Amino acid sequence: MVESLQILIESSRFQNAIMAVIVINAIIIGMETSPMLMERYDAILGALDQIAIGIFIIEILLKLFVYRLSFFKNGWNIFDFVIVAVALLPTGGSLSVLRALRILRALRLVSAMPKMRKVVQGLFAAIPSMGTVIILLALVFYIAAVMATKLFGSEFSQWFGSIGASLYSLFQIMTLESWSMGIVRPIMEVYPWAWVFFVPFVLVTSFVVLNLFIAIIVNAMHEEADEEQTAQRDEILDEIRAIRREIKELRS
Amino acid sequence: MVESLQILIESSRFQNAIMAVIVINAIIIGMETSPMLMERYDAILGALDQIAIGIFIIEILLKLFVYRLSFFKNGWNIFDFVIVAVALLPTGGSLSVLRALRILRALRLVSAMPKMRKVVQGLFAAIPSMGTVIILLALVFYIAAVMATKLFGSEFSQWFGSIGASLYSLFQIMTLESWSMGIVRPIMEVYPWAWVFFVPFVLVTSFVVLNLFIAIIVNAMHEEADEEQTAQRDEILDEIRAIRREIKELRS
Amino acid sequence: MVESLQILIESSRFQNAIMAVIVINAIIIGMETSPMLMERYDAILGALDQIAIGIFIIEILLKLFVYRLSFFKNGWNIFDFVIVAVALLPTGGSLSVLRALRILRALRLVSAMPKMRKVVQGLFAAIPSMGTVIILLALVFYIAAVMATKLFGSEFSQWFGSIGASLYSLFQIMTLESWSMGIVRPIMEVYPWAWVFFVPFVLVTSFVVLNLFIAIIVNAMHEEADEEQTAQRDEILDEIRAIRREIKELRS
Amino acid sequence: MVESLQILIESSRFQNAIMAVIVINAIIIGMETSPMLMERYDAILGALDQIAIGIFIIEILLKLFVYRLSFFKNGWNIFDFVIVAVALLPTGGSLSVLRALRILRALRLVSAMPKMRKVVQGLFAAIPSMGTVIILLALVFYIAAVMATKLFGSEFSQWFGSIGASLYSLFQIMTLESWSMGIVRPIMEVYPWAWVFFVPFVLVTSFVVLNLFIAIIVNAMHEEADEEQTAQRDEILDEIRAIRREIKELRS
Repeated sequence: MVESLQILIESSRFQNAIMAVIVINAIIIGMETSPMLMERYDAILGALDQIAIGIFIIEILLKLFVYRLSFFKNGWNIFDFVIVAVALLPTGGSLSVLRALRILRALRLVSAMPKMRKVVQGLFAAIPSMGTVIILLALVFYIAAVMATKLFGSEFSQWFGSIGASLYSLFQIMTLESWSMGIVRPIMEVYPWAWVFFVPFVLVTSFVVLNLFIAIIVNAMHEEADEEQTAQRDEILDEIRAIRREIKELRS
Repeated sequence: MVESLQILIESSRFQNAIMAVIVINAIIIGMETSPMLMERYDAILGALDQIAIGIFIIEILLKLFVYRLSFFKNGWNIFDFVIVAVALLPTGGSLSVLRALRILRALRLVSAMPKMRKVVQGLFAAIPSMGTVIILLALVFYIAAVMATKLFGSEFSQWFGSIGASLYSLFQIMTLESWSMGIVRPIMEVYPWAWVFFVPFVLVTSFVVLNLFIAIIVNAMHEEADEEQTAQRDEILDEIRAIRREIKELRS
Repeated sequence: MVESLQILIESSRFQNAIMAVIVINAIIIGMETSPMLMERYDAILGALDQIAIGIFIIEILLKLFVYRLSFFKNGWNIFDFVIVAVALLPTGGSLSVLRALRILRALRLVSAMPKMRKVVQGLFAAIPSMGTVIILLALVFYIAAVMATKLFGSEFSQWFGSIGASLYSLFQIMTLESWSMGIVRPIMEVYPWAWVFFVPFVLVTSFVVLNLFIAIIVNAMHEEADEEQTAQRDEILDEIRAIRREIKELRS
Repeated sequence: MVESLQILIESSRFQNAIMAVIVINAIIIGMETSPMLMERYDAILGALDQIAIGIFIIEILLKLFVYRLSFFKNGWNIFDFVIVAVALLPTGGSLSVLRALRILRALRLVSAMPKMRKVVQGLFAAIPSMGTVIILLALVFYIAAVMATKLFGSEFSQWFGSIGASLYSLFQIMTLESWSMGIVRPIMEVYPWAWVFFVPFVLVTSFVVLNLFIAIIVNAMHEEADEEQTAQRDEILDEIRAIRREIKELRS
């Protein structure tokens, strides 16, 4: 019984069917944003959504039944479990936010497509190589946020009124959006030396982010180059070793 | 007859003449945007444009006559065919749009210059390596658009009133244009927690786009490095094989 | 006595304790930006800050006692020394600025964490390879600032009234923030040819900055590739030398 | 006489002196932008400027006397010649523009510093590898400018009134400055489908520019890698050839 269920679950037909349900469900949730469609087909869309959730729950239950606790050893399974679990939360007070989160179910497409899993795993694999640089960037942001709050917080509380507000404003400045015309020039009318703080901040964060990118690029190329060069070296080494063998035979 | 026509068509003189017609035609269409020139030389410009179209049609007919159906096996020929065909469409109601599309004929310059063909083919060749990442990006955009429409659509319908409007606004946010001062700060005055949605969106899309770029860079370098390293390995292997041969002779 | 002190200072327990003090001190200075917290716990926060400074001073004194003048041979020690010294400056007239600088103590986290030291040293190591390009960029900025001041300074003194103002505005233009809508279009209403100055400036600085980035990327990859290829070459050379030795034995 | 002059001109002391004059002259021209300094020291600054020009003219005359016509074979000499010649133009009607161009003399610093020459030559050397892509980009811009003028020129003549205006606006859009909030959203209020033109334009130009960058990066790395790998291959080949020689000796 368990075995035949496992064969069913791992069949590509079953997986494709689940993928189809995910896509259809994503389209239905998207259609719910249209007031016109909602007016006419509210009941049908709601019912279809309920059916999709039902299918997802059955899928998870089947997998739990087959794999038991080893189900939770795979990160993607936990990912699927949490996303479906969110759908079962009561939609009480802050209704709209929870309803909006339902579309996150479309992310199950990533766990359902092996190619997509690989890309996302590749993206996550790039993060450790950026670890220390990210901590450094966080430190720079924290220091800059405290300084900005103390220096400009009293006069420009809409941007630098608290550490949180400062962090957001500094993030905006790092993305270079309206940093000068929108923020620094108005500040310089009150504190003419404000550029001494902001121009170095822009330069430092740009430089650190650039190095973050370079770390990822070098990492990506490293892996590519590694495999290939190793293959070529092995080819050469094979030939050389063949010569050694022949020389040995010559001597004996 | 067909053979001598083929020689004519494939002669560099014929191809250069066509290229000259393309360039002159592009300049004429450009001149039509000047009201002053249009007033004085409307008739001449129109006549020259008609002559250019005539030449293009004759060129395509000649090629069709020479290559028959194999004409359509080359993507660039189909490209030329479609562009010239557009010129023959009746310019009725939405006149200005069709007139504006006429300048697309200048794109024939790409198919007429071998170097340009190569570059454009190189650009298209880079797309498959980006395939899965683009699907991932599309998924992120769809999910974010549905969420933004549900969360902010009622209050900020000019930006997030429908999925289409949300997709456009999110594209603008991804390019970092006025994302904070123009969109997120006004939204935060109504929904103070809006940054929880937008800041991760900016980070995630930037990171995915960065990985898109890296995929292209690594791909481009891969090809470069490949050719060269293979050449160097072959040189070394040739030498090593020569040694083996000599050792064999030694043994015999 | 000195030796046992050195063992204490260099123990990881001591270094972790210092790191904890740095982090706690950074959090305390951050909490001082909150008016609510300041009102209630002003005295406690101030006392904790004094204790942290005391610990830092004792740490530096201990190190000075142990390493004597060789303490100053390590750049990171000088860095720590200066940061702690700033804390001892009298906070008189321009109080708020000096108080704001206190958070710079959090930067001691960089010198306290070996991994972070390495990253920052890596960032600084990238600077020499950019040296000449930075001088070139500075020259371009100086020339453009003088020209902009002379050409547009009289009419647009808020942006180009002096060389300093021009340098800031040109930096803003280089980051592409509001360069056209905010600055160049208004100028073009008075000087229609202003784009002849600004568009090439944008192109030249973008191109130079791009080359700055490329210098860093190539540098970073160079080092990576170097180590590896050398390792592979050595492996091959070892094998080849082994063959030579065997051939020599064959001859004798 | 000529020979001793040549030794003088090519001495590092002479070249350093010229470099000093260039720097001082650049500072003087910079000081002329300050109304305060001009009021007090107008005469002195003017005189110093005249002396600097005099020194430059004497330098060029000396070089012309020593190298004769071969002086003009070096691009950097022509560069110096043109820059000094501009200083001798009569400053008549459009005085301010010509006065502003005088600061271009500071660019002589590039030709006077060997390291800077190398960097600038490196920048120019990168241009040919970008040739075809730049032509492609120019073609895309021309086509887009003609289309934009025909489609939006009548309603938005301030941005797309002529091909020139359209080229400038499209350049601004390519740099992503205010492309959406500043230009495309206002246009979409009249032509709701305008995004069909602008979003692909942003995507295509970003993609082409990205490929321009990649061409430069790959080119730069190619050269780096080339030298090194060739050196390593030669090392290996040397060893292998030594073996062949020894085998030959073995056979004889």
